[in-house]
Amino acid sequence: MTSSPTIDAKRGLPLNLQSSDISVPVQPSHGALTPLGIEQVRIDGGFWAAMQDLNSTAMIQHCEDWMERLGWIGNFDAVVENRIVQDRQGREFSDSDVYKLMEAMAWEVGRTGDDSLNARFDALVDRISPVQEPDGYLNTRFGRPGQLPRYSDLEWGHELYCYGHMLQAAVARGRTGRLDDKFVQIARRAADHVCQMFGSDGIQSVCGHPEIEVALVEFGRMTGDRRYIDQARLFVERRGHGVLADIEFGRAYYQDDQPIREAEVLRGHSVRATYLAAGAIDLGVELGDQSLVDAVRTQMDNTLSRRTYVTGGMGAHHEGESFGADFELPSDRAYAETCAGIGSMMANYRLLLATGDMKYADVVERTLYNVLATSPGEDGRSFFYANTLHQRDPGTVPSAKEVSARASSSMRAPWFAVSCCPTNVSRTVASLGAYMATSTVAGVQVLQYATGRIAAQLADGGVAVNVVTDYPHDGAVRVTIEETIEGAWTLGLRVPAWAGDSAVLRVRGDDRPAPVGLVEIDGPFQVGDVVELELPMGVRVVMPDVRIDALRGQVAFERGPLVMCVESVDAPHVTKVDELRVAGEPSLGEDGVVTVPMRNVALTARAWPFAVDSGAALSSDVYDVPIRPYHQWGNRGSSTMRVWIPTEADVSRR
Amino acid sequence: MTSSPTIDAKRGLPLNLQSSDISVPVQPSHGALTPLGIEQVRIDGGFWAAMQDLNSTAMIQHCEDWMERLGWIGNFDAVVENRIVQDRQGREFSDSDVYKLMEAMAWEVGRTGDDSLNARFDALVDRISPVQEPDGYLNTRFGRPGQLPRYSDLEWGHELYCYGHMLQAAVARGRTGRLDDKFVQIARRAADHVCQMFGSDGIQSVCGHPEIEVALVEFGRMTGDRRYIDQARLFVERRGHGVLADIEFGRAYYQDDQPIREAEVLRGHSVRATYLAAGAIDLGVELGDQSLVDAVRTQMDNTLSRRTYVTGGMGAHHEGESFGADFELPSDRAYAETCAGIGSMMANYRLLLATGDMKYADVVERTLYNVLATSPGEDGRSFFYANTLHQRDPGTVPSAKEVSARASSSMRAPWFAVSCCPTNVSRTVASLGAYMATSTVAGVQVLQYATGRIAAQLADGGVAVNVVTDYPHDGAVRVTIEETIEGAWTLGLRVPAWAGDSAVLRVRGDDRPAPVGLVEIDGPFQVGDVVELELPMGVRVVMPDVRIDALRGQVAFERGPLVMCVESVDAPHVTKVDELRVAGEPSLGEDGVVTVPMRNVALTARAWPFAVDSGAALSSDVYDVPIRPYHQWGNRGSSTMRVWIPTEADVSRR
Repeated sequence: MTSSPTIDAKRGLPLNLQSSDISVPVQPSHGALTPLGIEQVRIDGGFWAAMQDLNSTAMIQHCEDWMERLGWIGNFDAVVENRIVQDRQGREFSDSDVYKLMEAMAWEVGRTGDDSLNARFDALVDRISPVQEPDGYLNTRFGRPGQLPRYSDLEWGHELYCYGHMLQAAVARGRTGRLDDKFVQIARRAADHVCQMFGSDGIQSVCGHPEIEVALVEFGRMTGDRRYIDQARLFVERRGHGVLADIEFGRAYYQDDQPIREAEVLRGHSVRATYLAAGAIDLGVELGDQSLVDAVRTQMDNTLSRRTYVTGGMGAHHEGESFGADFELPSDRAYAETCAGIGSMMANYRLLLATGDMKYADVVERTLYNVLATSPGEDGRSFFYANTLHQRDPGTVPSAKEVSARASSSMRAPWFAVSCCPTNVSRTVASLGAYMATSTVAGVQVLQYATGRIAAQLADGGVAVNVVTDYPHDGAVRVTIEETIEGAWTLGLRVPAWAGDSAVLRVRGDDRPAPVGLVEIDGPFQVGDVVELELPMGVRVVMPDVRIDALRGQVAFERGPLVMCVESVDAPHVTKVDELRVAGEPSLGEDGVVTVPMRNVALTARAWPFAVDSGAALSSDVYDVPIRPYHQWGNRGSSTMRVWIPTEADVSRR
Repeated sequence: MTSSPTIDAKRGLPLNLQSSDISVPVQPSHGALTPLGIEQVRIDGGFWAAMQDLNSTAMIQHCEDWMERLGWIGNFDAVVENRIVQDRQGREFSDSDVYKLMEAMAWEVGRTGDDSLNARFDALVDRISPVQEPDGYLNTRFGRPGQLPRYSDLEWGHELYCYGHMLQAAVARGRTGRLDDKFVQIARRAADHVCQMFGSDGIQSVCGHPEIEVALVEFGRMTGDRRYIDQARLFVERRGHGVLADIEFGRAYYQDDQPIREAEVLRGHSVRATYLAAGAIDLGVELGDQSLVDAVRTQMDNTLSRRTYVTGGMGAHHEGESFGADFELPSDRAYAETCAGIGSMMANYRLLLATGDMKYADVVERTLYNVLATSPGEDGRSFFYANTLHQRDPGTVPSAKEVSARASSSMRAPWFAVSCCPTNVSRTVASLGAYMATSTVAGVQVLQYATGRIAAQLADGGVAVNVVTDYPHDGAVRVTIEETIEGAWTLGLRVPAWAGDSAVLRVRGDDRPAPVGLVEIDGPFQVGDVVELELPMGVRVVMPDVRIDALRGQVAFERGPLVMCVESVDAPHVTKVDELRVAGEPSLGEDGVVTVPMRNVALTARAWPFAVDSGAALSSDVYDVPIRPYHQWGNRGSSTMRVWIPTEADVSRR
């Protein structure tokens, strides 16, 4: 192991760090693309507007209700009332879920101006505020007589992790016009406390769960105080040198096995890995440290090419909730934790901003539609924690009143003993506008397609476009110029890699091929000018890399950004979807439903499942079996489900 | 859930329960077959004699040395010296490993008469003895001031589990001619204590790890005291009704989810499941409760047909060290814990004794050669804890001085923080003779083939045969009558299912087909009579059941009872064995090495591993690649390895 190169902390540091005027979770001081805030990007209709409505009307309240009911919010009251030692509820990181709920509320208040939600946010602040100690420490689990001492269990205590989510909630508050909010002040005292305790002369360690890093950088950006960024640098640089205890999972579990500049690929606990990656990109950008950004980019590129599910899901092991080896991607044991999907979006979005490479926006899109959108049920009151790609046995629908184990139930559950995912979904959906478009001094880039309005301030003035689309159900995207400037500017539209060479752009009545990447149309524009993009929405048959043992002899189906699946409720003629074999090409019916011709395999019971023949035979009958978007699965009761469906090869072979 | 049927505890209970005159770990009072002890079955040469030598010369001493070094044996001293609270070493179940070592020593003393080993056994007894409390309680982890109270953590505390291994060691001692041994007396006091504490009026619960059940039945058989069997009945009947706490893994982890009579298949932690199954069979036999034996038999049959690896390994999940769903048998994540293999042998051997069905002896054989024999390295000083069927990346060889995490290293390790496997291998190898042959009133059954001598007492007198074979390297087995009786008796030879219809029997110069199962040759015999069995030793190409997703498009190779594998040290022309594709039929070279023609697949790096084509191409060159017995793998340094090797289908397809 070689020692890490020293960061020149001054190089590239922006002069004007403070940024609190745009409502975004991430606001790098520089980069290839500049994010647009949630007041600049408005989603008015379609898929994501419906999801934001669901968040508004169900998810946020659901999360608050559960955390009240279980006493996770009440823990703060219990501290004040001096009964926390006997009464504390929830796991060691339960404070963080309250902060994630508050982040969701803050973005939602910013997005909608909802006064009653704002009052609920303030009420939470009033319960949390008295728990903060004079030196800024704030945690319901540690430090009082009868509790473990502060920072006595950095491996599992999650104290710094909890601050991280507190700071992100404070960023949401500060960036939605409330920089002087009481909660921002609480967070600042906590951040100051962290810098004092863990600074150069302080505790020479890190948190077992990365999160404080990404949060400190953003809090530094918002407040203009570079101490927070310096502290993030200390945390990122310290990790990887074995500063935490070795554990049964190994130090790779919390990325303390290798300095981040030396790693080749993401490894260990997938949420920890992606959160750390996001923080390191932010840090590299603020320090002007290209080698750090490049190191993380390489790790992400290798992770995408070898350790990511077709859904965008990350994490192949239940054991340690971790990445597997390269090409170890079992469908049935896919963990693909919802939070790891969100972590992946965080890291890939930051790489997009830093590099301008549309590949990372493709990853965000894939993850949005196939991980983030999969987690919540249609009611917004149940969630997948793990996102399997193959449900072997019909699951049981958990009771709406009970807490579930995080991955034991195959169906969506209302809440979990470890319930990081619901609040993570909620805060991400509330701030979703920020992921949709970016700008540069010379133009606007539409990254994700949804009906709505995008405004941006360019070097020469303000511009705005209106987007109308039924995406992802339809591939037509119509962009109309609503506001423009005198001179030239550029409208960019992302053409996803999955479109191949089939996307078509229509500008001023002219059709032309739209190659994969960012297609740019140069102005000047007139108000009312229309640009149309037609993305190919035929169903694609997708084959796995031959190194993925778990997928050999199977194909998946995709339509636009949607990964499809077959669910047993659509195949009543078989007991389990495992009996189905793809027997032809998919077709899109007039009812909008895609079907695939399939045969059944007749399975014989055998005393021993390994023999000189496969012991199976194909039905002569062919059935047209519907396949549907993966994110919809599990909403029609218990079922078995497959994303990857075997071809007939293994049955007829030999 | 229906209530369990009541056992009629008197029905079928044998009149004369006591059995201490035959040196076997299992001695049912009745059953289809009667076990033969280690002084009746002597292994003189070949594969298993070499393994017993390795145990004698290396394994036993290795285990003792490590447990001294780590202080697991010293824990008993620490209790006596009143410093256990601060000084205790090892996990909560470390006492059990000392008892398993002692069981190995006891069988080994019985087998070899080694006086110095006997003295080492006695020395351990002298250190353990003073730790036993007046009421019989004996555990270094619980019950003293500063420790958790006795039986305060039945879920994880392992107190009854530790007694179980103590009792099994005492059975080994008692059955090798020392029924009045000090250790047998210690065990009896402990067993009495258990009956008092957990009897009908006692604590209405069970141990989180089954083991006490199987041990109590055997201890009852040996001592002739039916209280122990009654207590085992209480434990078996109580489990499955949710008497233990629900945990993240679910109650199935410790088989407390379903009464044993209602379960369809083994599930949860695979060692726990197989130990419980063994105990329940023993109990069913002693109670004459056929329905209990049948229930476990059905569970085992279903486990063998759906949840067992081709190696005989059990346990598909690292998470919870547990069985997976039906047909969920990933090679790369095979846990297949060595102890679960031993547990499977325990349960299948008991089913064999109870039913006489040779199928269960087949399972024992498969597990002996491909799980038990795989665990220890050639030096007898390193062990596999988990037994993967696919090593993706070359592992690092653990230091001979350091304790390893149980499944994090891909190579054999000298010792583990949880080190149940080495002592389990050692005790099993020392008592291996007992698995080789059985008798009935009318004959002898040779179950496993090894050079040696088998003696048995039939109704009409004693008989003995001499076996000469180079099995499993060669399929010829020559059995010579050494002692016989006047009248008729039957010599039985097991023909494994893998032999198909190709085994040939030669009796008195006459060749005839030997069908799968037990082939019986009726006497009378003369001393010097020879019976020869010729088992087919051609290499077999084996295909997986089509329901096993992880194995689709792959084949395995078997030769005799040996599962074969390809290891990268034998394929220097590729980086990893994952590049190999089977391109033809196996052949056996004159040097005794099996080779398979294979092509390489040229793999291209791609940014995203899912596309409309597989992105791979086959080499035109074909290489003859050696395949070797799986149990030998990992003895030549770091390597990658596969049992199941892909065919060319996935590369050339579409």
